[in-house]
Amino acid sequence: MRSNFSLGRLELVSGSSLPSAQLSYETHGELNPERSNCILLPSYYTGTSSSYEPWIGPGRIFDPARWFIVAVDLFGNGVSTSPSRASTEIAGARFPDVDIVDNVIAQHRLLTHLGVTRIRLIAGWSMGALQAYEWAVRYPEFVDAILPIAGAARCSPHNMVFLEGVKAALLADPAFRNGCYSDPPVQGLRAFGTVYAGWAYSQEFFRRGTYRELGYSSVDAVLRGWAADHEREDANDLLACLGTWQRADIGKHHSSGFEGALRQIAARAIVMPGSSDLYFPQADSEREVSHLPRGEFRPLVSELGHVAGRPGIRAAETAQIRAAVQDLL
Amino acid sequence: MRSNFSLGRLELVSGSSLPSAQLSYETHGELNPERSNCILLPSYYTGTSSSYEPWIGPGRIFDPARWFIVAVDLFGNGVSTSPSRASTEIAGARFPDVDIVDNVIAQHRLLTHLGVTRIRLIAGWSMGALQAYEWAVRYPEFVDAILPIAGAARCSPHNMVFLEGVKAALLADPAFRNGCYSDPPVQGLRAFGTVYAGWAYSQEFFRRGTYRELGYSSVDAVLRGWAADHEREDANDLLACLGTWQRADIGKHHSSGFEGALRQIAARAIVMPGSSDLYFPQADSEREVSHLPRGEFRPLVSELGHVAGRPGIRAAETAQIRAAVQDLL
Repeated sequence: MRSNFSLGRLELVSGSSLPSAQLSYETHGELNPERSNCILLPSYYTGTSSSYEPWIGPGRIFDPARWFIVAVDLFGNGVSTSPSRASTEIAGARFPDVDIVDNVIAQHRLLTHLGVTRIRLIAGWSMGALQAYEWAVRYPEFVDAILPIAGAARCSPHNMVFLEGVKAALLADPAFRNGCYSDPPVQGLRAFGTVYAGWAYSQEFFRRGTYRELGYSSVDAVLRGWAADHEREDANDLLACLGTWQRADIGKHHSSGFEGALRQIAARAIVMPGSSDLYFPQADSEREVSHLPRGEFRPLVSELGHVAGRPGIRAAETAQIRAAVQDLL
Repeated sequence: MRSNFSLGRLELVSGSSLPSAQLSYETHGELNPERSNCILLPSYYTGTSSSYEPWIGPGRIFDPARWFIVAVDLFGNGVSTSPSRASTEIAGARFPDVDIVDNVIAQHRLLTHLGVTRIRLIAGWSMGALQAYEWAVRYPEFVDAILPIAGAARCSPHNMVFLEGVKAALLADPAFRNGCYSDPPVQGLRAFGTVYAGWAYSQEFFRRGTYRELGYSSVDAVLRGWAADHEREDANDLLACLGTWQRADIGKHHSSGFEGALRQIAARAIVMPGSSDLYFPQADSEREVSHLPRGEFRPLVSELGHVAGRPGIRAAETAQIRAAVQDLL
């Protein structure tokens, strides 16, 4: 069951604000009397708070009989306050820049409202990992452990360039009309998905034909699937979250910079990059974990590329994530 | 000095043909009386026969005082017969599918016309490598040695997907008009270049700031440069060569398939993938070289990604290419 938390006007680090900001979330299980069983799952690009469901349930990674699980929606994802779902003042092309920090501040207010005083674990895939790091930096007293999967503590320059590419493909369609479309820019959205398909997996994924395990009958079916999936997205929402991602950097608002921010993370961490991820490469995670006082570098060994960590993707990957969660809890 | 070789009507493996086909080329040095000093340099994507000039000259990799160097232009590259440079029958969107095989057959006719009976070495970067492999398969009695750099013996499925992405970015611009533009599809061309920029280098290239060594002051300058460079290209030419690349496969017309074709290559080979190439990954080359009777796997160690092998890119890479050439000659 999805709920909405009203934040009133949310001041953003950019200097703008979200009037009547709404943070959407789902909870599973109950907060125990000791308030010691909260798990936070921050959403990822083109995902929602529901996307973590494959991890949640009896016998799954997080059993609601034991844990109070809170899954939250990123601003801009079409469920929390977003270009496609906002008051006229900030709708569509007028949506302001929202950073990872803004999301984390709003999530902190939500959890406090829910009576949570400490989080046992923040587990997040991709943009979820960006949020896990930011939480650990900004609220050290609140976070016991983090499990960033297929993510990083900032958007690297190459990652930024890859995102400029998918963005350029969308903007090449004049039907986007600088964000003031009435009919969606269909060709641009399809191109966005087509470009993205090359980045989402690994070279080995295509060579081995692993796409068949994910329900695609052929390479062409992968391309058609990605084009069709993105045709359904709202263009301004896609670009809003893409900007949030590009600006992510735990060092940006930290007095001792990026490495200093990593060194001050008190939470235990298992850092789990995908071993064949093309845009959050494991070399970046290895470098970051070397600055964490209590961090372990543990690649998610998989030929699935970036999607290796996506909830419910495949049993072999889920088993590795489950083991890491068990070690942290 | 660029010359043109007239082939008359060139029948293509697709069943179509190029009427009045012209193959452009440059030669440096003279064929010796023994006809034993020919070096062939086949052109690469968005390159021409002139692009190999950094390798040619006294003190460079190939000295024209000793070698008879022939650099040839791919069909579709805007210099040899191309959508932008063809008779009305096959101009623009009407240009037929031209394969690597067609290029190699035409090049064989050119070399025979020039009096060449044997090639000492075919060295080619990227699409040049695709042609080197095809030569060795199709004309085994003609080729002593090949040096495929940052390429492969076929276009892998992932490589095909990456190319579909850059293509989709161009086609998202309706100004392309299915290839029947009068004004160029500027936004599409710029998007094509922007998407490509993420693939051309490596993650490490951006992380270390190596772009500064290539004359780019910032990551933004890389993006702007790639957009501007591709804005100048002809869209139909770009797509013609892209199709040639996507269809490349030495096994396609070979009775014993891909691996059989590799096993029958009699030429000596040093196979030199870029160690950080994102779309011709070295794992593919390693697999291919395992089937070559006289092949050595020797990665071009570099953080430059795919562009590591581009003629004149940087001294460290040129030194590795020079050493391989010396070992083969």
